[in-house]
Amino acid sequence: MKKQPVKIAILVVLSVVSRAWGMEPLPVLPPVPADNPMSEAKIALGRQLYFDKRLSIDGTVSCNSCHTVMGSGTDNRPVSVGVGGKKGGRNAPTVWNAAFLSVQFWDGRAATLEQQAKGPILNPVEMGMASAADAEARIRAIPGYVSQFEQVFGKTQPVTYDHIAQAIATYERTLLTPNSPVDRYLKGDQGALSSAAIRGMKIVEKVGCTACHMGPDFAGPEMPAGQGFFQKFPIYTENNPYVAKYHLMEDDGRFAVTHQESDKHLWRVQTWRNVALTAPYFHTGSVPTLDEAVRVMARSQLGLTLKESEVTDIVAFLNGLTGEFPDQTMPRLPQTPNHSLIPQ
Amino acid sequence: MKKQPVKIAILVVLSVVSRAWGMEPLPVLPPVPADNPMSEAKIALGRQLYFDKRLSIDGTVSCNSCHTVMGSGTDNRPVSVGVGGKKGGRNAPTVWNAAFLSVQFWDGRAATLEQQAKGPILNPVEMGMASAADAEARIRAIPGYVSQFEQVFGKTQPVTYDHIAQAIATYERTLLTPNSPVDRYLKGDQGALSSAAIRGMKIVEKVGCTACHMGPDFAGPEMPAGQGFFQKFPIYTENNPYVAKYHLMEDDGRFAVTHQESDKHLWRVQTWRNVALTAPYFHTGSVPTLDEAVRVMARSQLGLTLKESEVTDIVAFLNGLTGEFPDQTMPRLPQTPNHSLIPQ
Repeated sequence: MKKQPVKIAILVVLSVVSRAWGMEPLPVLPPVPADNPMSEAKIALGRQLYFDKRLSIDGTVSCNSCHTVMGSGTDNRPVSVGVGGKKGGRNAPTVWNAAFLSVQFWDGRAATLEQQAKGPILNPVEMGMASAADAEARIRAIPGYVSQFEQVFGKTQPVTYDHIAQAIATYERTLLTPNSPVDRYLKGDQGALSSAAIRGMKIVEKVGCTACHMGPDFAGPEMPAGQGFFQKFPIYTENNPYVAKYHLMEDDGRFAVTHQESDKHLWRVQTWRNVALTAPYFHTGSVPTLDEAVRVMARSQLGLTLKESEVTDIVAFLNGLTGEFPDQTMPRLPQTPNHSLIPQ
Repeated sequence: MKKQPVKIAILVVLSVVSRAWGMEPLPVLPPVPADNPMSEAKIALGRQLYFDKRLSIDGTVSCNSCHTVMGSGTDNRPVSVGVGGKKGGRNAPTVWNAAFLSVQFWDGRAATLEQQAKGPILNPVEMGMASAADAEARIRAIPGYVSQFEQVFGKTQPVTYDHIAQAIATYERTLLTPNSPVDRYLKGDQGALSSAAIRGMKIVEKVGCTACHMGPDFAGPEMPAGQGFFQKFPIYTENNPYVAKYHLMEDDGRFAVTHQESDKHLWRVQTWRNVALTAPYFHTGSVPTLDEAVRVMARSQLGLTLKESEVTDIVAFLNGLTGEFPDQTMPRLPQTPNHSLIPQ
């Protein structure tokens, strides 16, 4: 990964400058839970597991299948395809900078990256393992992994489902994209953004987008881990043609987690970072382009119909949130000589 | 990649030594076709394309999906899963060292890696693109690729299906695994193999396996590109319980290519390199373990029932053909801001 040396004094100044905008540059490090400290060995193990399709029942799906770190951190599909050609119910969010989110999944049902990582492996339409014990057994049958887990987690019960998730989450905390043009602009580089992008930046402030899309991930204010920043979507439903066209209200959102009426159609506010790369858009994946997503949001959240020139400027600004992706070594996955772990 | 400096003089000596065994260490470089010279930029482009799922109709399958270079160069499944959960007809052969094979595919229907690369992209049960023109259009719609293709292939028609295949094949020619214990043994390192592996080496010579499994890839004598080394499998079918158990004769093999009766059940001789990692075995992928594959081969090709101690020794020898896998940089795939190329 590229190193980003930053002086504390500069950070303090920037923090003041950027908060005036309601926008912040990406911090150098994301929050790290006290019970899962980072280490090089744990990152390397997590990277291997992230790419290892043996964590799916039939050996066809890894974390990277739907959240590809060679690209946008998504699969750029409306919804993902899991084992046996099964389709998921919601668009895959990006893994890039997810470490800054205080809750995970569209409905915020996981408090941490560790909890999130445990979901897809057991989801029948994603990786389809029958149980946590089966996932552990799959990994325990790979001698190279066992010695790596021992090195990282100690010799007592090294391979557990919790440890698998901890290693994956640790790798994910390295998936940050700093130094986007907007970050550089916020740090004082006036030439980092085009005039269209600067106009777009002013429009999103003025019309109210940044009431929600603020903070380091442009996904809400900083919250304690596990506490989500949710908003209703869509808010303006009357005479809103997008609701039917893009099936925006067929999914109850956070209601499915809490069963509270007030959580109907509540969603975690999504990050704007790298949003230009993560089409198609929304939980439905039904909106194909970023300019249309901007129109949908303005109409549905602010009751506004933007001028096309405003849409263009906002899209220019959002493109300025595409960051620098770190160089990575391709993992080498430990093998099982003489046999395969995938069921015949 | 690790560098392998080798002096010509040593190579000549080794060549004499190893030919006495009918076995050869892996050469430093594979054959390179005159019309597709290698370059760093072409290798980098090919690596990106190899991992790019946008070369499949629904964005779910890349070359690497079934021939994973983070592992064995296969998917360790009986048969692969392509777009829409469709299953292939034959077990995926390894991409590692495929550059040394004079023909590609189980039935040798492609003369070169370039021709091979053009198959799966258009195969309806693999990557499922409707036509070469569609694959070209997908890549042409990615500005980052267009400039890379221009750099590698020039400004006149840079993105063609032929060039896509040439880049992928060029990358594949870097996928070599030198310095296996057997290679080191053949070069004079007596301690590189266990005594069991050395016994196994003598057995495969004595019983006749190396009549076919010879040459740099242990897949036959060196042949001109496009000329395959084929053998009938199974040869001994009478009272051979494996024929029915593992469905060894349900596929006509090379006959499907040539429609000549003499090509029924003819198959390209498979490489032994890294064979310990490529379970399950044979065109069917129906034989789960390497020791069982050894029993099946002895019975079916030589009419022999080996002692279990001989099977164990041969498996030890074959494990000695697992090579060193080169370190690789993870490719970064050029993106298409504001929209996705995958059909909704």
